[in-house]
Amino acid sequence: MKFGGSSVADADKIRAAASRAIKTKKAGHNVVMVVSAMGDTTDNLVALADEVNRGKPAPKREMDQLLVTGEQVTISLMAMALEEMGQPAISFTAGQIGMITDDRHTKARLHTIDEKIIKRELAKGRIVIVAGFQGVTPSGDVTTLGRGGSNVTLVAVAAALKADVCENFTDVDGIYTADPRKVPNARKIDYISYDEMLELASLGANVLHNRAVEFAKKYNVPIHVRNSQNNNKGTMIVAETPSMERIVVSGAALKDKLARISLRHVPNIPGQAAGIFHTLASNDIVVDDIIQTIGENTATVSFTVDLGDFDDAKIVCDKLAKKLNCQVVYETDIAKVSVVGVGMRVHTGVAQKMFEALAKAKINIQNITTSEIKISCLIRRQQGAEALQLVHDAFNLGKKPQKKVKKTAR
Amino acid sequence: MKFGGSSVADADKIRAAASRAIKTKKAGHNVVMVVSAMGDTTDNLVALADEVNRGKPAPKREMDQLLVTGEQVTISLMAMALEEMGQPAISFTAGQIGMITDDRHTKARLHTIDEKIIKRELAKGRIVIVAGFQGVTPSGDVTTLGRGGSNVTLVAVAAALKADVCENFTDVDGIYTADPRKVPNARKIDYISYDEMLELASLGANVLHNRAVEFAKKYNVPIHVRNSQNNNKGTMIVAETPSMERIVVSGAALKDKLARISLRHVPNIPGQAAGIFHTLASNDIVVDDIIQTIGENTATVSFTVDLGDFDDAKIVCDKLAKKLNCQVVYETDIAKVSVVGVGMRVHTGVAQKMFEALAKAKINIQNITTSEIKISCLIRRQQGAEALQLVHDAFNLGKKPQKKVKKTAR
Repeated sequence: MKFGGSSVADADKIRAAASRAIKTKKAGHNVVMVVSAMGDTTDNLVALADEVNRGKPAPKREMDQLLVTGEQVTISLMAMALEEMGQPAISFTAGQIGMITDDRHTKARLHTIDEKIIKRELAKGRIVIVAGFQGVTPSGDVTTLGRGGSNVTLVAVAAALKADVCENFTDVDGIYTADPRKVPNARKIDYISYDEMLELASLGANVLHNRAVEFAKKYNVPIHVRNSQNNNKGTMIVAETPSMERIVVSGAALKDKLARISLRHVPNIPGQAAGIFHTLASNDIVVDDIIQTIGENTATVSFTVDLGDFDDAKIVCDKLAKKLNCQVVYETDIAKVSVVGVGMRVHTGVAQKMFEALAKAKINIQNITTSEIKISCLIRRQQGAEALQLVHDAFNLGKKPQKKVKKTAR
Repeated sequence: MKFGGSSVADADKIRAAASRAIKTKKAGHNVVMVVSAMGDTTDNLVALADEVNRGKPAPKREMDQLLVTGEQVTISLMAMALEEMGQPAISFTAGQIGMITDDRHTKARLHTIDEKIIKRELAKGRIVIVAGFQGVTPSGDVTTLGRGGSNVTLVAVAAALKADVCENFTDVDGIYTADPRKVPNARKIDYISYDEMLELASLGANVLHNRAVEFAKKYNVPIHVRNSQNNNKGTMIVAETPSMERIVVSGAALKDKLARISLRHVPNIPGQAAGIFHTLASNDIVVDDIIQTIGENTATVSFTVDLGDFDDAKIVCDKLAKKLNCQVVYETDIAKVSVVGVGMRVHTGVAQKMFEALAKAKINIQNITTSEIKISCLIRRQQGAEALQLVHDAFNLGKKPQKKVKKTAR
């Protein structure tokens, strides 16, 4: 059972999470809890570090040494809450249960977990509480697992213990066909495959981080995303089953803070594009989608970046354009609307239906990118919300899928 | 160099402490810093635990798991501050440098330190920052060292490294002949022996905890107590030298929150007193001084306790009196004034001079206890402040001691 920062934000919420764990334990299950730092703790620690560093980047090893304290506070308080309610419990930092990572501080990768200690404590009838988001190098330095790290911890512990299920408690009822804040008739999804979840997450559905889902897929650990405030059944993220293909589109997503950068009249020489993206990567700029069109002697290389990375990207691209003697065009009002579904593998006409829905509303599609189970369209940002609602409704996502579906429009 | 909680209470103070360490490093010394939790951090963590535990005592292992985070925050911020100023630095928790303790959580005793890691980092030109107050058991559980624990860390690290000196930075200029808040003409002491410091500390001079001083005495580590706000020379706590005996009295102290409990008409049977104090100890009541007077067939057993322990002590003693069929008298307005000095070993008349000073002011002495280098008088609390000032002046403690002193009054 994993409880995120908002589910352990104060003493009452910690006690509520403890009660829930005790209920599960009393139903006959062994329980391991993975917890995040309380509420704004991590943000406050980062602010403190910024103050000490006068805005300069902090040494990463020391940043990790600082940040792991947030989760350590929560694990000990959670153990106290359980004990106070009469449930034997014990808390562990990553180091105490040998959650070994590499030494890439602030974004370390998990290598191994020594599950023996957890198993020993479970065998004593205890609830075991593990600090999320953290690891330890073989030489004893503490590390953090990057964004979404607590979910990586959750899935990794579950995999190591061969757990029946991971329960991921959040402040929403599960995964929705679209963000319910943007699409009022969005519907909770009961089952979704790992691959669909991976696509949705990378398209802006901000529930579960990709690395956790990849881990879950690799070890086939089912994740139950559910609300810590109620007992509703949430969304099960599971391995793909044949019946899932009956549903053509499972969800829609909008990423609305994008910028597009186009380098025009780039000399069409082999290795040129690789050189451009190598330069961007070495400046830590993450590129979203890439579209390259080739003319007679020159090419146009377009790509999107998060708006937050735009200023850095512009500096790099201005230099690049000068060096390559080409033209550069910046557009900062870009959004991306996408639909995802494993059913696309067997059903045709999905792209057409999406383009028609957007065309009817006079929404101009600037670029199209696709994968086996996803179609994305770049559009103007001011049309993003409307576009999301339109494609959501074009595929009837607001309605419960029928048990038996005929092959749909091609 | 050790910086207590008030010397690292915010980002500016952390940077100030870092500057000071860099100055020492640039003067050609290797520097290890031991730091406490920032300002009220520990109190805030305890309050949070109380809330989760609804006032019940917390499991001690989990309390330690919680409290050590306070120092871990400071070490990482201190390392960042040093690095930001261009000084290579590295922070270590107790576990990372093998500060092994027993498993008596919340009051663990240090067993060993693996000084190799610190030496390796010093050899790289780094300043090493060590988390005070904490340890780790051989099985990896974190522990805390109890009250004054950061000073224990300081002295233990200094002893392990065979350091030239420990600098203990506080918010006062050093050790005074009496508490300057109570005695305006109190004077800073330049040199004081471990034994005198031990007596003063246990008599209420609240600068350095006894366990740290005992450790320093055992390993002959000089401690320099000084002010983090200025560059003044503070007080050196060192091994006793023959010249110290020329000063009859080094300091005076007042403990003014005491209660006295007297069991009267206790049957004078061997083992009776031992039984009484065994009962008190097993109820976690710390007894200060004991005075026993023996009559023909019965004895009076008096002892003092801290006022904070009085309520608990009363419950125990009411029961004891019933069981022993004796009378019990409680007085809650007791103070203890004391003078300390290794010179008492060779000079006589010290007690007489003290009693005369108190008698002249019509301060009634209720009990007297002595050691080789200390004389204490129990008095009424309302006369405590006056008594402290009187004995302080009777021994001319406000004046700088002369280099050559004749044998004084006997």
